[in-house]
Amino acid sequence: MKLASFAVETPVGTKRRVGVVDDDELVDVTTAYAGALDAEGEADPETIAQAHAPPRMVEFLQRGDRAMAAAERAHEYASEADAETGPSGGQLRFEEAEVNLLAPVPRPNSLRDFMVFEEHVKNAMGEDPPDVWYEMPVYYKSNADSVVGTGETIQWPAYSDLMDYELEIAAVVGKRGTEIPAEQADEYIAGYTIFNDFSARDIQGQEMEARLGPAKGKDFANAFGPYLITADAFDPESAQMRAEVDGETWSEGTPGEMYHSFADIVAHVSQSETLHPGDILGSGTVGEGCGLELGQFLESGNTVSLHVDGIGTLENTVE
Amino acid sequence: MKLASFAVETPVGTKRRVGVVDDDELVDVTTAYAGALDAEGEADPETIAQAHAPPRMVEFLQRGDRAMAAAERAHEYASEADAETGPSGGQLRFEEAEVNLLAPVPRPNSLRDFMVFEEHVKNAMGEDPPDVWYEMPVYYKSNADSVVGTGETIQWPAYSDLMDYELEIAAVVGKRGTEIPAEQADEYIAGYTIFNDFSARDIQGQEMEARLGPAKGKDFANAFGPYLITADAFDPESAQMRAEVDGETWSEGTPGEMYHSFADIVAHVSQSETLHPGDILGSGTVGEGCGLELGQFLESGNTVSLHVDGIGTLENTVE
Repeated sequence: MKLASFAVETPVGTKRRVGVVDDDELVDVTTAYAGALDAEGEADPETIAQAHAPPRMVEFLQRGDRAMAAAERAHEYASEADAETGPSGGQLRFEEAEVNLLAPVPRPNSLRDFMVFEEHVKNAMGEDPPDVWYEMPVYYKSNADSVVGTGETIQWPAYSDLMDYELEIAAVVGKRGTEIPAEQADEYIAGYTIFNDFSARDIQGQEMEARLGPAKGKDFANAFGPYLITADAFDPESAQMRAEVDGETWSEGTPGEMYHSFADIVAHVSQSETLHPGDILGSGTVGEGCGLELGQFLESGNTVSLHVDGIGTLENTVE
Repeated sequence: MKLASFAVETPVGTKRRVGVVDDDELVDVTTAYAGALDAEGEADPETIAQAHAPPRMVEFLQRGDRAMAAAERAHEYASEADAETGPSGGQLRFEEAEVNLLAPVPRPNSLRDFMVFEEHVKNAMGEDPPDVWYEMPVYYKSNADSVVGTGETIQWPAYSDLMDYELEIAAVVGKRGTEIPAEQADEYIAGYTIFNDFSARDIQGQEMEARLGPAKGKDFANAFGPYLITADAFDPESAQMRAEVDGETWSEGTPGEMYHSFADIVAHVSQSETLHPGDILGSGTVGEGCGLELGQFLESGNTVSLHVDGIGTLENTVE
């Protein structure tokens, strides 16, 4: 199942919704689930649908298996029903073209980005990774308030002259947990999405000399999308990834090359820390997955398209 | 004015409140402001009080000057009124001993920690700071979900043998803004609190070799408190700070030694990023403000008390 967050312009203001992707259409999960409940004779279908499958992604993820089951039932109902609207008059389906697709998790609870592709580390650091890199999945924390979705323009920071993309996938946490064993990590990952960790390489290199990691070099924009594919429908080991700049392929790779798996990442982070629904865990850049490794950078007006088989295409223009 | 977040046990569950500190008592801001409005003939005092001065700190900060004015009026009303309860029967005042004092911002919107004390950098790095340190305030982002208040026990992570405290103050953002000039930064700082950035030095040193900054070394616990002192009532330049371990003074210092001011920090961070109410900006450790600089570390059972004149004492035991 592919899930999306989207915004609908209405006469009473912009409304955020969660959808199940069905070809070029989005099934409105809350409305269609209310429709299904209504058809089953539920006394107050809208209230139950809002409780089980709320129209904001972090709250939706907090409902866990109950929300996922509601989304599946909503999808099924919207495929079979003769009705075009739910019990309170909301549309069951939207054309993608008539709504504003958002990042799947428009405001994550937190955002950690790892660095688990050996080739990328060697290329980016210009030397072999330090011992610690092999011992644990290392990461930095980024700015959860700087998230953008597909189609959104990235504003080039005035303090940078060297703009880069990074080809990554990201796991979205769907269950609260602490001290999670790697063998149980699967239960805590709701699904995956594509991540473009836009990077201002000049200031990033400069500030990392002070040893506290990247900050202004990363925190101005984190692009995610277009969809959140549920973990049961996606195999990170075999997915093919590709980055194009203005239609030209710059990078290709697969998350199968991850030295530390997402399961190891979940186990590592959750030691003495609690993972929450809506936390995002980025894989870090796949080998040769950014311009820094290729010796070429973005120019103003470039459109970067990150494609991952099974998820879709995340597209952003830098300006 | 000193503000606090606190929790009250009630027969219908634990309730979070925002208080104005008045000696050993906490004036319940929402209730006392409703009382003041009621006395002025307001038609629906509870609803207006909830809207202007909500009982959760991040929402309270989002209301800006309106919330601060409500808190002042609440304090005044509680000092003058004959009543002991507000219009809906809530207590106007609580003894500190009868409530559970929380971190002033129990779940910050985000948490950035800077490193602006030259002596600390020299002592901690064992060498002069790199050029970039003088050019901009450098920082890492910490875990906003790991915040604890005064009196809370710090759980020693199983992966660490070397536990340290850090004596810091932190500014709390009270207004949303982007590209904020340093000379206007004051408008964006609601106030200050004490910050103990507990640090697991062994894993911190190890993971920082991978250049992404600290993570597991910092993210297990961030202690703040006991109060948020409003910016008009506190001068970071002259405040005296002290760290005691089991009653013995280990560190002394003043934020006046900051090489980059909080105004410079606000200006730097807000370039191409938006600051939000409830964001926390830590100063970083004052010179000789941690055990690492003194060659001595915490032991299980130690109580660390950070005292800042004008704010109070933040006390946590490690276990």
